[in-house]
Amino acid sequence: LDSRGDFIGSILEIDLNRLVENYNILRSKLQQDTICAAVVKANAYGVGARHITGALASVGCEDFFVANLDEALDIRHSVSDENVYVLHGVDDKETAETCTSYNIIPVISSVPQLETWYKHCKNSDEKLPMVLHIESGMGRLGLQEEDLKYINKHHHLLSNCSIRQVMSHLSCADEPDHPHNYHQLTMFKEILFDYFNYKSKASLANSSGIFLGDDYHFDMVRPGCAIYGVNPTPHQANPMKNIITLKAKVLQKRILDYDYAISYGATYKASKGDKIAILEYGYADGYFRCLSNGSYVNYLGHKLPVIGRVTMDMIIIDASALQEQEFAKMDFVELINDEITVDEIAKRAKTIGYEVLTSLSPRAKRIYKIKIG
Amino acid sequence: LDSRGDFIGSILEIDLNRLVENYNILRSKLQQDTICAAVVKANAYGVGARHITGALASVGCEDFFVANLDEALDIRHSVSDENVYVLHGVDDKETAETCTSYNIIPVISSVPQLETWYKHCKNSDEKLPMVLHIESGMGRLGLQEEDLKYINKHHHLLSNCSIRQVMSHLSCADEPDHPHNYHQLTMFKEILFDYFNYKSKASLANSSGIFLGDDYHFDMVRPGCAIYGVNPTPHQANPMKNIITLKAKVLQKRILDYDYAISYGATYKASKGDKIAILEYGYADGYFRCLSNGSYVNYLGHKLPVIGRVTMDMIIIDASALQEQEFAKMDFVELINDEITVDEIAKRAKTIGYEVLTSLSPRAKRIYKIKIG
Repeated sequence: LDSRGDFIGSILEIDLNRLVENYNILRSKLQQDTICAAVVKANAYGVGARHITGALASVGCEDFFVANLDEALDIRHSVSDENVYVLHGVDDKETAETCTSYNIIPVISSVPQLETWYKHCKNSDEKLPMVLHIESGMGRLGLQEEDLKYINKHHHLLSNCSIRQVMSHLSCADEPDHPHNYHQLTMFKEILFDYFNYKSKASLANSSGIFLGDDYHFDMVRPGCAIYGVNPTPHQANPMKNIITLKAKVLQKRILDYDYAISYGATYKASKGDKIAILEYGYADGYFRCLSNGSYVNYLGHKLPVIGRVTMDMIIIDASALQEQEFAKMDFVELINDEITVDEIAKRAKTIGYEVLTSLSPRAKRIYKIKIG
Repeated sequence: LDSRGDFIGSILEIDLNRLVENYNILRSKLQQDTICAAVVKANAYGVGARHITGALASVGCEDFFVANLDEALDIRHSVSDENVYVLHGVDDKETAETCTSYNIIPVISSVPQLETWYKHCKNSDEKLPMVLHIESGMGRLGLQEEDLKYINKHHHLLSNCSIRQVMSHLSCADEPDHPHNYHQLTMFKEILFDYFNYKSKASLANSSGIFLGDDYHFDMVRPGCAIYGVNPTPHQANPMKNIITLKAKVLQKRILDYDYAISYGATYKASKGDKIAILEYGYADGYFRCLSNGSYVNYLGHKLPVIGRVTMDMIIIDASALQEQEFAKMDFVELINDEITVDEIAKRAKTIGYEVLTSLSPRAKRIYKIKIG
């Protein structure tokens, strides 16, 4: 039980000082007048949008991107003066009105969305802000060249709104040598010139895009994963700091009196004398089932392998590397920390660090650490 | 926007009538005097513990199993008179007191837990209920034979509590021919005889265990996955009914004017003329990233493939199988339904239906359907 009287099974500590350090590392890569926004969609990649936006706003971040309107409203109170952008835009009169009521800026990605926004703006006394999202080769959301031609012909659609910026999104920025990066950059520049006469502010780079160099930075960059410590340069050492420590409680432990099959399907045979511990953390908490027999946890610097199948609420580990006294004392172990990073877990699960973060369930108690001064 | 003014991106419909049908299918497999409990841990496998427990209690289910005390307190108000069992037991004075205050029954899996419970019970005027969890070959939580011998020697540990039942858990019940099933059954019976003189109530079977026959049922069965529609007999047709429909909103669609690389890493090449749609659902919502280029969705009975990488908040599909008019009307598609079941998604993601369910994020709006009468 913690001080609030809650039952504690697992703990996710988030180091807000390191978060801010990461933000500052990214900012140091930019020219003076380039803005560093923060992407806080999906509840700040699972880490907790309200706390993250509050911490970043306190060091001067003024621009936050979320996926949908629910997420925008969720952070509106923690960042009351900052710009909040909704990447999925508006889809009807009501969502457009909600944007204006709460001072939320929609990102417009299609002609139907622009038409919705135009109808809404027509009735306004002032020009309402929005961002135009251009498709430059990501193959996902965004206005394509034929859409821009259509808008040029129907120019009234932009008559009562103000284009805060024109943005696009990179698809291969984590592979710096991929020809697609330069291709997207070129296309984006051409569009800025052909359709906006270079007069609009522009934004292209995600986390990895920041590391492609100044050409990719324009007026604003929009990092997400790098702020949370995921490596934006997967082919090199991680320039970012890990911000999370995930701790699971030891539910039970035992030194085996005989050989023993472990967990569902009896896929692992433990041996007499092995030190076995059951942890209160499973795939329902976001520890992927594919990590069965294929990962490890940390205690006092020891790497302790996950044995048998990961189950819904529990993991079994082999703690035989510990001395008996250490084993007797072990009450919590670390599943993610500076040694076993989000990227390391991702590699073992054949995915990316982003999915490790967004899969962390609410069942782990969040503790936000911040050192003042 | 729905009637409550919320923004709608994706919808998870849960059919409570089918849930009850599943519960009744399981109950029909049992002898008259065998109790059918329900496992509602991990927020009822991601589906929503409060609604699920309420619906099952209304048709006579009186026994609910959760993983930890937080989960027990979460459902205590929706099922005020029913038995709520905490599988992870008690770990200190405070958790023991909370159990008694809220009439929650701990499942005791180790000697230290029993000692905690004993100290708590000593001060009570009445015998306090608990369940003893025996390890019969699962290789996870539970009292082993040496623990039972220890308890026999220190019999005062059981002096002021009432053993509601003795339970154990099967590790290979989804493989009916696995010798481990009979091995566990035999060991469980021996323990019931040797240490409890067959006087205690007993429980062994999970969902799959129910289908192993009467020998495995004892006084109570504890189904989880089967109630939620996951196939408890993976080598045969599913005897259960699907209870969920997962719908994602179409954010944008386009008939391609030219060939086109799709999503991160440009792993899919779409062709001129293809009908492409972007859905508001991604791996942050629980649609595993490993389903990239490897799954499909449903619209008007058409199977529409997921193309390119699944991204955090969006999926791209090829809807070329649709007529232009159908494509123009398409506003929501189904990601999980009676055709694309939880088990089908699991197979494609090389996991089990349980993990598909527990990975569903809170971002999808829950709608609980119930037909009265």
